[in-house]
Amino acid sequence: MEVNYKNIKVIGFDADDTLWVNETYFREAEEEFCRLLSEYETPNKIDQELFKMEMANLELYGYGVKAFVLSMVQSALELSNYNVSIKTIDKILNIGKDMLNKPVELLDGVEDVLKALSSKYRLILATKGDLLDQERKLEKSGLTNYFHHIEVLSDKKEANYSRLLGHLDIEPSEFLMIGNSLKSDVLPLVNLQAHAIHVPFHTTWAHEQVSETETNGKLYKTINSLKELIKIMD
Amino acid sequence: MEVNYKNIKVIGFDADDTLWVNETYFREAEEEFCRLLSEYETPNKIDQELFKMEMANLELYGYGVKAFVLSMVQSALELSNYNVSIKTIDKILNIGKDMLNKPVELLDGVEDVLKALSSKYRLILATKGDLLDQERKLEKSGLTNYFHHIEVLSDKKEANYSRLLGHLDIEPSEFLMIGNSLKSDVLPLVNLQAHAIHVPFHTTWAHEQVSETETNGKLYKTINSLKELIKIMD
Repeated sequence: MEVNYKNIKVIGFDADDTLWVNETYFREAEEEFCRLLSEYETPNKIDQELFKMEMANLELYGYGVKAFVLSMVQSALELSNYNVSIKTIDKILNIGKDMLNKPVELLDGVEDVLKALSSKYRLILATKGDLLDQERKLEKSGLTNYFHHIEVLSDKKEANYSRLLGHLDIEPSEFLMIGNSLKSDVLPLVNLQAHAIHVPFHTTWAHEQVSETETNGKLYKTINSLKELIKIMD
Repeated sequence: MEVNYKNIKVIGFDADDTLWVNETYFREAEEEFCRLLSEYETPNKIDQELFKMEMANLELYGYGVKAFVLSMVQSALELSNYNVSIKTIDKILNIGKDMLNKPVELLDGVEDVLKALSSKYRLILATKGDLLDQERKLEKSGLTNYFHHIEVLSDKKEANYSRLLGHLDIEPSEFLMIGNSLKSDVLPLVNLQAHAIHVPFHTTWAHEQVSETETNGKLYKTINSLKELIKIMD
């Protein structure tokens, strides 16, 4: 069945790993964290415990770099049985600061796509990261003018997208979401009868992974590069 | 000169210390932080250094509890010359978690005011705190249904409010902001020819304080209680 995009008024773009590199920096930070704690545990165990900590703190801290840093600090305390050195805590804080200061590396074709689509549709950036961090990245990217505004969602579940559609005053059939996460950018939209296009990124955070049964029979398109959007939405 | 509110379509409410108690919890957290570090410095010095650290980190971390916790951890390292115990770091993390888990204590008359105004105006919550934290407080407060949506601003300067007005598709003269901070909720709006009403809270964070010359000749109303809004906006 061919999907019909003729009613679309607003297109929401996920930011991290859809417009620019992000997950790669988290992977590098995790590797650095494993090195800092290598006297206490194997990298595999440290990775697992950090992920558990992030999940345990998710409801309280939410997403983004600051939440990640706080979970790293707490993990360092627990993994070392409260023996980790204060200098290591300092280094963990600096991992976070370095992440926030990273340059923005745009993915292939992003600006061409935004230029082509922004003349026909209202474009918004829809992210569950930290607003300040995303504004900073958007500023660094030089893409600010293509977007009507940034929408920060505390999570990307159906209820969050429902509220977003209410806030935008549009029908589900008038909204298209584009992103790299099936769990966050695609499935909730399809379930709401809105549209979604999946653009996979080579690395996916464990928390964002979905099983095949969850995508089975769902109506969305997958493209290999954002650039394919220009033809699809023409 | 009497201000005329007849064009108002959207009313923005600041959240912390306008609808519910917040600054009080930060003051309590700071006191606890001073106790934890009392072997290294006087409370006065600790307070000053923590504030300096928050200001130094503001551009990178922004506002909210997570940013505050990260600044407390870094201050503890530096104030103790990297001698603070790991248990103290753990206690600092818990100060933050306790803050995020605080019950919401509504200020006097809030619900009556929102009930009265929501039938005539579109109400939004406009905050520079953390979205997840503010959504959680709004949920706990039982006030969710009075608001069209939450707007998170990375800062509350003129440029941020300008973007907000663009996003809401309204003229400055159609927007009224209500809040406890002259610096964040009142002066930027007045400078944009939008409307603002000041409702002071008994405690103001040093970062939010303004001098008398900044308010001199500015056109805004000050009220002692949110309840006065019902008459003013009738």
